[in-house]
Amino acid sequence: MHLITGGAGFVSVELTGRLLNAGQTVLCVDNLSRGKLELLKPYLGRPGFHFEQADCADEAAFMRAVEAHHRADPITDAWHLAANSDIPAGVADPRVDLKDTFMTTFALLRVMKALDIPNCRFASSSAIYGDLGQKRINEDAGPLQPISNYGAMKLASEAQIRAAVEAFLPRADIFRFPNVIGVPATHGVILDFVRRLKDDPSRLVVLGDGTQKKPYLHVKELVDAMLFIARVADGRYNVFNIGPEDDGVTVRSIAETVRDTVAPDADIAYGSENRGWVGDVPRFAYSGDRLRGLGWTPRLTSEAAIRTAAREIAEQEGAA
Amino acid sequence: MHLITGGAGFVSVELTGRLLNAGQTVLCVDNLSRGKLELLKPYLGRPGFHFEQADCADEAAFMRAVEAHHRADPITDAWHLAANSDIPAGVADPRVDLKDTFMTTFALLRVMKALDIPNCRFASSSAIYGDLGQKRINEDAGPLQPISNYGAMKLASEAQIRAAVEAFLPRADIFRFPNVIGVPATHGVILDFVRRLKDDPSRLVVLGDGTQKKPYLHVKELVDAMLFIARVADGRYNVFNIGPEDDGVTVRSIAETVRDTVAPDADIAYGSENRGWVGDVPRFAYSGDRLRGLGWTPRLTSEAAIRTAAREIAEQEGAA
Repeated sequence: MHLITGGAGFVSVELTGRLLNAGQTVLCVDNLSRGKLELLKPYLGRPGFHFEQADCADEAAFMRAVEAHHRADPITDAWHLAANSDIPAGVADPRVDLKDTFMTTFALLRVMKALDIPNCRFASSSAIYGDLGQKRINEDAGPLQPISNYGAMKLASEAQIRAAVEAFLPRADIFRFPNVIGVPATHGVILDFVRRLKDDPSRLVVLGDGTQKKPYLHVKELVDAMLFIARVADGRYNVFNIGPEDDGVTVRSIAETVRDTVAPDADIAYGSENRGWVGDVPRFAYSGDRLRGLGWTPRLTSEAAIRTAAREIAEQEGAA
Repeated sequence: MHLITGGAGFVSVELTGRLLNAGQTVLCVDNLSRGKLELLKPYLGRPGFHFEQADCADEAAFMRAVEAHHRADPITDAWHLAANSDIPAGVADPRVDLKDTFMTTFALLRVMKALDIPNCRFASSSAIYGDLGQKRINEDAGPLQPISNYGAMKLASEAQIRAAVEAFLPRADIFRFPNVIGVPATHGVILDFVRRLKDDPSRLVVLGDGTQKKPYLHVKELVDAMLFIARVADGRYNVFNIGPEDDGVTVRSIAETVRDTVAPDADIAYGSENRGWVGDVPRFAYSGDRLRGLGWTPRLTSEAAIRTAAREIAEQEGAA
């Protein structure tokens, strides 16, 4: 059986579908603080799919949620996707990322050790690198200086998993996510723009000057890469950037794409700062060489992914 | 006023003495779980010295311990030396390093924000690098893959401090310690050997095959470097390896030095593994170029530091 923490989130829904379609059984655990059970509606009641509401940061509650399932159908893979997804909220109050981004990892490792679950697949983030400027970032890059509590607690999670591999854990894959887009969208810049334009089709106000440039990956490609790494990589501890080949697209370009999709006549107004909030990295470029070397390359450029997701999200929001 | 967390520990005692001798006022906070109040005996009752027993991982208790002192004599510098010092204990139970090595950092940053304390001086560790083999490690090295929970929680602490500098903290210095030796010794390989030889002057049994080679720094040099960096470095976030110029000495050489000091006729017996415990890095070499560039170089080689400390510790233990 596959366990997915934060199982009612955006990426988890796609992963759940892929695993079920491949004939696997899946147990999603989520405290439903940010995740929404309705996202899993396509799978509720389907044979081989299980959902438990529990806080993965609470070791005892988490253990209660998974133990009986594990006895009936042993968990082989723990896909750890539980985390705070609201970076500014974590900057305002570091206890948010401490609990939701790090303590979920800490509790998961305790449960994995107690139940002898062998494979940890962790959704890490480009945020662990911090602001490395124009440097093309590969997985061995240093220094690691995250500039948000979210990035700090993702790095703390990686470190704790690495130490667990030394002490008891047979295998861990670390997936460093870029910005991920697609449906079902629950947060993020495209959803934000779509909703604003649906409210006021004449005008879109953008936080920052729109020059922030980042790589974007479609959720279907991300999950494909995760499953590929889990299947093909053969180390005990594998770290992979997952991202597009390009340097990304600017917020300005995203705003124009969403405008063209939702409200072609809208004016766009920009701020004057080159970053949106404390802890937001204005610009970074990922090297996907290691993953390409393993044999996987994304199909869509950042720009194509943005266009695809803008259409999907406009449709989701009834704004197409 | 200078605040020292983990103020009743080995390094803190030396730091306290240096600060008091320079005319500064000092508040040491320690829960006395591993620290010992008797180490601070030379300073108890001395004007300008204060001690409070409190758990620095407990934010409310920590705040109660420092708040009144801060109102009377504002804390300008928080020297964060509280941590678990027993690496194997943290591997056996990760909650030890979570609480003592990381949550002390987390709580300190909350208190610093609440009280507007501007300067954080953090005792980090070479353990954050993990096992980089023969590579000469500078401060920007990657990947960072700590192999103990202690190293993981030191890295988590650095990350959380880095994010705090982005959000609110005016200044942080990160000191990456090598193995530190000297008196008052409370733990470590020399003290262990001295005590074993005092118990049985005929024989010393060494864990591992004795080929582990590490750099060692005398505590007096370490504290001198910390004070130098705090005074001279001018960035908002400064990371420095502090260590000797050499590649270190082997456990075999340490065993022989202690034998020659304490019980010259003893036989030494070695194990067959090249590491002592899970999470112990067998060999590493530090680059001190950044600190040398700032203008500071240690006086003693690792070997000279070991000889000095062996004499001091043998005397402390009445085994000279």
